[in-house]
Amino acid sequence: MTFSPAPRNLVYQIFVDRFAGTDGQPLPPVPQDAQQHRHHAGGNLEGIQARLQHIRDLGADSVYLTPVFEAESNHKYDALSYENVDARFGGNGAFETLAAKCRESGMGLIVDGVFNHIGCRHPWFADAQANPDSPYRNFFKWRDYPREFHCWQGHRGLPELDLQNPAVIDALLSAPDSVLRRWLRRGATGWRLDCANDLGRETCALATHTAREEGAIDGVVGEVMAYAEDWVQDGRLDGVMNYYFRQTVLALISGEIPVSQAAYNFKRMARRFPREALLRSWNMISSHDTPRLATLVPDVARRMFALTLSFCFPGVPLVYYGEETGMQGDRDPDNRRSMVWDESQWDRQILNAVRQLAAIRASHPALRFGDYLPMPQPGAPTILSFARVTDTPQEIILVVANASDEPISCRVFTPYSHLFDSLPLHNLLRQESHIRVSSGSIQVELAPWTVAIYAPDDSTIPEYRFFRNH
Amino acid sequence: MTFSPAPRNLVYQIFVDRFAGTDGQPLPPVPQDAQQHRHHAGGNLEGIQARLQHIRDLGADSVYLTPVFEAESNHKYDALSYENVDARFGGNGAFETLAAKCRESGMGLIVDGVFNHIGCRHPWFADAQANPDSPYRNFFKWRDYPREFHCWQGHRGLPELDLQNPAVIDALLSAPDSVLRRWLRRGATGWRLDCANDLGRETCALATHTAREEGAIDGVVGEVMAYAEDWVQDGRLDGVMNYYFRQTVLALISGEIPVSQAAYNFKRMARRFPREALLRSWNMISSHDTPRLATLVPDVARRMFALTLSFCFPGVPLVYYGEETGMQGDRDPDNRRSMVWDESQWDRQILNAVRQLAAIRASHPALRFGDYLPMPQPGAPTILSFARVTDTPQEIILVVANASDEPISCRVFTPYSHLFDSLPLHNLLRQESHIRVSSGSIQVELAPWTVAIYAPDDSTIPEYRFFRNH
Repeated sequence: MTFSPAPRNLVYQIFVDRFAGTDGQPLPPVPQDAQQHRHHAGGNLEGIQARLQHIRDLGADSVYLTPVFEAESNHKYDALSYENVDARFGGNGAFETLAAKCRESGMGLIVDGVFNHIGCRHPWFADAQANPDSPYRNFFKWRDYPREFHCWQGHRGLPELDLQNPAVIDALLSAPDSVLRRWLRRGATGWRLDCANDLGRETCALATHTAREEGAIDGVVGEVMAYAEDWVQDGRLDGVMNYYFRQTVLALISGEIPVSQAAYNFKRMARRFPREALLRSWNMISSHDTPRLATLVPDVARRMFALTLSFCFPGVPLVYYGEETGMQGDRDPDNRRSMVWDESQWDRQILNAVRQLAAIRASHPALRFGDYLPMPQPGAPTILSFARVTDTPQEIILVVANASDEPISCRVFTPYSHLFDSLPLHNLLRQESHIRVSSGSIQVELAPWTVAIYAPDDSTIPEYRFFRNH
Repeated sequence: MTFSPAPRNLVYQIFVDRFAGTDGQPLPPVPQDAQQHRHHAGGNLEGIQARLQHIRDLGADSVYLTPVFEAESNHKYDALSYENVDARFGGNGAFETLAAKCRESGMGLIVDGVFNHIGCRHPWFADAQANPDSPYRNFFKWRDYPREFHCWQGHRGLPELDLQNPAVIDALLSAPDSVLRRWLRRGATGWRLDCANDLGRETCALATHTAREEGAIDGVVGEVMAYAEDWVQDGRLDGVMNYYFRQTVLALISGEIPVSQAAYNFKRMARRFPREALLRSWNMISSHDTPRLATLVPDVARRMFALTLSFCFPGVPLVYYGEETGMQGDRDPDNRRSMVWDESQWDRQILNAVRQLAAIRASHPALRFGDYLPMPQPGAPTILSFARVTDTPQEIILVVANASDEPISCRVFTPYSHLFDSLPLHNLLRQESHIRVSSGSIQVELAPWTVAIYAPDDSTIPEYRFFRNH
């Protein structure tokens, strides 16, 4: 058990083929008529390494790569091998170099484990289908050998592995040189498990346990597009890509649900997920499987609102490459355009916001590992407010958000026992004068769709401290 | 302890004098000027036997009979004997024949135990009152012997038994040939305890314990017209006629309370009642002590809404004879009209709904013995939603109800960890295309006062299963 002492500050997700070429060169735009999943734009691991500074400048301290193993598609969720990094991505050598670079700078490197299915030309499947006596025949679930077999969501190009077969589990997870162990030893710091729900809870638990044995400091995070409580109980997964968080935030900013529903969903996750699993889950707003935020939500205030919440709710914020610069992109494959490196095309407002939020998170322990304290305001139905608190009272962060099209001026109650009367609070997101607590409440003025992140400022009165810590 | 492995599917309640005559013959209507409780319409046990097919066709697998022992009234809550079935009902022989028939077809036969009081012409009371040395004198609670005695709710025709007297308890419950034991041995499968609250908790517990000793598979269900938590704790009763459920549902459909109150009442029962007791309680909407639903609630949509909830909330739904065909009937005694067997007068919509709901309950284990998982939707205040879940994730049943006069289209959050993204759900109550889960939520469209009962359909993609069970 060598988890890092605190969850990561920010995860940056990269779709490898579309990020950067050798020396970090920009990639050509993907032609409109490109074969959807076959066209390679030329991104590779060396390109990522060359662009690490951009990622670090954001405040990110870990990178999650979509799959890197040999495969025919550009996304590589159809593995032909678990042994070799795709030659287009630079092969195993490039991986080891990138891993060393990440290790040097303390960055996490999380790889994508696609263990539910493989590409139909993977040697295991090819041999199993061609040869009735193949040692791999029982790696798959045949309905009518050799033609009918279980495959992922009906895609015949993606035969499912039989995870009930101990030999499969051995090869992928358990054996001393299993796929999972091997890549951790080669420098990965954690795994993201593709379609964890298809793997099932036992397989997830085994992967998580094994990664811990290997000392993987970023553990195992599962893709679970559901309310994931049961997937993080009992150590099954260290965390999830929190699609329930995403669904809640998007429904809120689209006006589909009121604050009360969002607050209820937040509270439910905060209460029911084990604390560590909530803190290690990824608060994602977009990914390679969703439209980009700029396309989904043209209104910039609402976009900033969603982004800000992903840094305030417990969990690690995730930024999908290009989201920090305001890239457009509709559903797959349009959400996988080549990264725009021409800075003149960047949305500076979004970029600065991401940097600012990441810096705030980095310097405020309550945001990284504080508990979630709901502060419902039934008297102000458009106000979403909560606090993040640690055992050190002055570390409190108070989040107050106005989820409406109207500016609001109202009293917000702050039922936390160390927000003392006349304590100054400042909004970390703005240069503005302090507000002061008044007997467990504050008076706030918020523009439409804005979030205030308040921290106490205990230095305004010389020779006096509000917080005593005893 | 030989409880049936699962709670019953549906209990059918019969007011014996008003159901069916010999050979199942229809009974004459009760004349308007009939003496309220003395007029006998001629129903008997043989008539019930002849009409068992009607009951089975509903999907019912148990029958609860109002009292059958000798008595002057038609309702027979004023027993003259605990030894003999009333001759008008066919006597003891008819009971044994009916019991044998029920046993053959796996039907439960639950009899009504009136142990708090007896009819004033019962030989025990007659002897006690006439003879100061009577062995039965201490069976009763005299304030001023022989004229003033405790009687049920002031009805002098119903002297109360002294349940503090061990001889009374012996005769009714404990002795090797007690009333309770004897009729279980003669074929009853369980007891319903009349006014259980008057019996007190100790007597209830003793009755329940004794019925279990006798291997009564339907145990002991008490009439408790209150929030019954304390009556089902510690094995006092196996279940109750759930009048708190009824009150909640009727208040909801009458507009007297909002969904939030109904959801709160449901959650409270689900959390506080022991699991088995909740599952074995009877979700009744009407009985011989209440107006009939068709009379109370003219609007058919609201009636169907209430009926549907009685099949969805944990507990065994109870149908009072004639409710399934839409019979009218106001308060006692109007709610005890002769059963209408002329099918041209039946309300087919209600009948089909009861049959469909019973079939759904029979084939979905979560409805019979699943836990109750509240799914509050603060964002959609007219939506009542909850799930019933077992340890087998794909058995989940998701209930979403629109308790309003307006159609609704909204997002409903489904915080259950196995409702995976894109999983198809179908509404068991309608022939309609699937809806699909979207990151722990669904988009629903519901007409006013309708309920959707969603089950996952894991068979839509050939060679792929969402649920893995590992």
